[in-house]
Amino acid sequence: MAATTGTGISLEELQLAARNHGMPLEALRHPITPAGLHYLLIHFDVPVVDAATWRLEVDGEVERPLSLSLDHLRRRPAIERTVTMECAGNGRARLEPRPVSQPWLSEAVGTAAWRGVGVHALLDEAGIRPDAVEMVFTGLDRGIDGGVLQAYERSLHLDDPALADAVLAYEMNGTPLPPQHGFPLRLVVPGWYGMASVKWLARISAVDRPFEGYQNAQAYRLRRDEDDPGVPVTRILPRALLAPPGIPDFFTRERTVPRGPHVIEGRAWSGLAPVERVEVSADDGETWWESELEDDLGSPWAWRRWTAEWRPPQPGRYVLCCRASDAAGNVQPLEPVWNVGGYANNSVQRVAVTVAD
Amino acid sequence: MAATTGTGISLEELQLAARNHGMPLEALRHPITPAGLHYLLIHFDVPVVDAATWRLEVDGEVERPLSLSLDHLRRRPAIERTVTMECAGNGRARLEPRPVSQPWLSEAVGTAAWRGVGVHALLDEAGIRPDAVEMVFTGLDRGIDGGVLQAYERSLHLDDPALADAVLAYEMNGTPLPPQHGFPLRLVVPGWYGMASVKWLARISAVDRPFEGYQNAQAYRLRRDEDDPGVPVTRILPRALLAPPGIPDFFTRERTVPRGPHVIEGRAWSGLAPVERVEVSADDGETWWESELEDDLGSPWAWRRWTAEWRPPQPGRYVLCCRASDAAGNVQPLEPVWNVGGYANNSVQRVAVTVAD
Repeated sequence: MAATTGTGISLEELQLAARNHGMPLEALRHPITPAGLHYLLIHFDVPVVDAATWRLEVDGEVERPLSLSLDHLRRRPAIERTVTMECAGNGRARLEPRPVSQPWLSEAVGTAAWRGVGVHALLDEAGIRPDAVEMVFTGLDRGIDGGVLQAYERSLHLDDPALADAVLAYEMNGTPLPPQHGFPLRLVVPGWYGMASVKWLARISAVDRPFEGYQNAQAYRLRRDEDDPGVPVTRILPRALLAPPGIPDFFTRERTVPRGPHVIEGRAWSGLAPVERVEVSADDGETWWESELEDDLGSPWAWRRWTAEWRPPQPGRYVLCCRASDAAGNVQPLEPVWNVGGYANNSVQRVAVTVAD
Repeated sequence: MAATTGTGISLEELQLAARNHGMPLEALRHPITPAGLHYLLIHFDVPVVDAATWRLEVDGEVERPLSLSLDHLRRRPAIERTVTMECAGNGRARLEPRPVSQPWLSEAVGTAAWRGVGVHALLDEAGIRPDAVEMVFTGLDRGIDGGVLQAYERSLHLDDPALADAVLAYEMNGTPLPPQHGFPLRLVVPGWYGMASVKWLARISAVDRPFEGYQNAQAYRLRRDEDDPGVPVTRILPRALLAPPGIPDFFTRERTVPRGPHVIEGRAWSGLAPVERVEVSADDGETWWESELEDDLGSPWAWRRWTAEWRPPQPGRYVLCCRASDAAGNVQPLEPVWNVGGYANNSVQRVAVTVAD
């Protein structure tokens, strides 16, 4: 992946930004992100799928290969998981030099209730053979990425705890999956960045050696430079975002608020451990105070709402920031940590606000 | 509005592109655009509205001011209009120099079935006084645009035929409006660019002189240069778009197809008169052939599907184009017509396709 300096977003990046949309940050006010506001990253094209002829194949190193219709899946016991999903590339466009790909700022996130069949239940039914080491999930979306012709596919280790949490979802927020979120069936891997949650699922294969597909072995890796083989991108690093207060300027998006006091609100999440602290700053990270953290959704995989009172001492320009910490000791950095692919940049959000006179 | 040359999209434009999303062009395969794939342009923030306390006020030069709840509106006779809506800024980022605002390429469009109350029926009920000349529609979304603090609002002349077609919609595609499309109520003006279709409607006022609000008098005007007062942006110019065939490259979005033959499909619309012809080119507009035009939605305000067989004579690189003409004699230009605001650029789409060997 190439990187570029300061001169602006290229036509190719703009084409991606016009297709793949973020969650406008005022939607942080909704505990469950309304359909159409949840972020979307679509590597290739959204396929048009005929649910009547579609089948999920479960094959490879299994005792009993399965070929299941949507009705077959719907007749099985259902589970539901409320999950905050975030794109691994969130924050990429704030890196310098900028890795050129989908140019996310801070908004590639959303929370939904995903209902479907547990992956483990289906694997038990198929009977995984002892020599299997990974499960490969293959979507119907096809294209060229990094010069490689491929269907979008990703693997998970059979002993990864994520597999026990994972859902084969046919509903999002109580309705059938919209086409752009993977109709008729998608994988949802709670706690992991979105690249793991394969959409338009067609096949699940048990394999007897580590999967070397492009999206595992090449694309989604944290690499210091082009020669570094890197480590896989997996779980979501902690992040807090605030809903920008007051009113925006259409073009600059800068905010104006009356003198206050104000209640700043936002949400925070981590795929590594429960979020246990969100701090807020009004001076671009010089000084911080504690927010009040709620557990409003009661799901270990979903964001938590937080609020903080802010009393601006005088009119003028302020830079609001928020910073999440999780129970495993992970804290958001003030400055980005650069890597070749531009992944997992969870440096703190900065929101410029003018307090009116 | 400023304009800029070639060096790339600015941070401000990227912020807008990350919020306001287009319809991925493969969604042209759907006659009605699924929720979440329809384009969105949100000037300020999506407001969070409590439907229980929300009211629509109808006032100004009327005999009987009205204050209506959502239930009041739902109890009235309903109408439904299937409407293709397009942003007035669609195509802006293809202008040179580029007017800096939301940087649309070609994808700011979508088609939905809007159900609600006819505007005329409500105006009859309120009784418009003889001295009224325009109706002003005011949304709940507020912000600063062009240095002017404002609620988003737009007017229509009382004698404009668009007013007879217009709907106060509370449903989109059979479900309550999503927040981002104007919940609980929006105006839909069939045939007009989207800026006329005010979302999050709070007030309809009859006024006795032409409305001079920012979005009518300053923003949405076709101006040759900064000194030109210009003419208002109103109805949608004809446009055809094709669903890019084959498979994409993730980053460049360039297409690869097998040798063929292929059926190219797309949709075409015009707010000025019925579309009656769509031509297709495979050599960047040098030569053209006729597509077959359908009337699949049967709505005078909705796009029409078209198909065209394409038999590439040999492997290699081709540039596909399509060009709509309407019954009023309007034809899409091959090259953009520049204006200060970057509005209504309906120059023909170009899709680069490599036919594999």
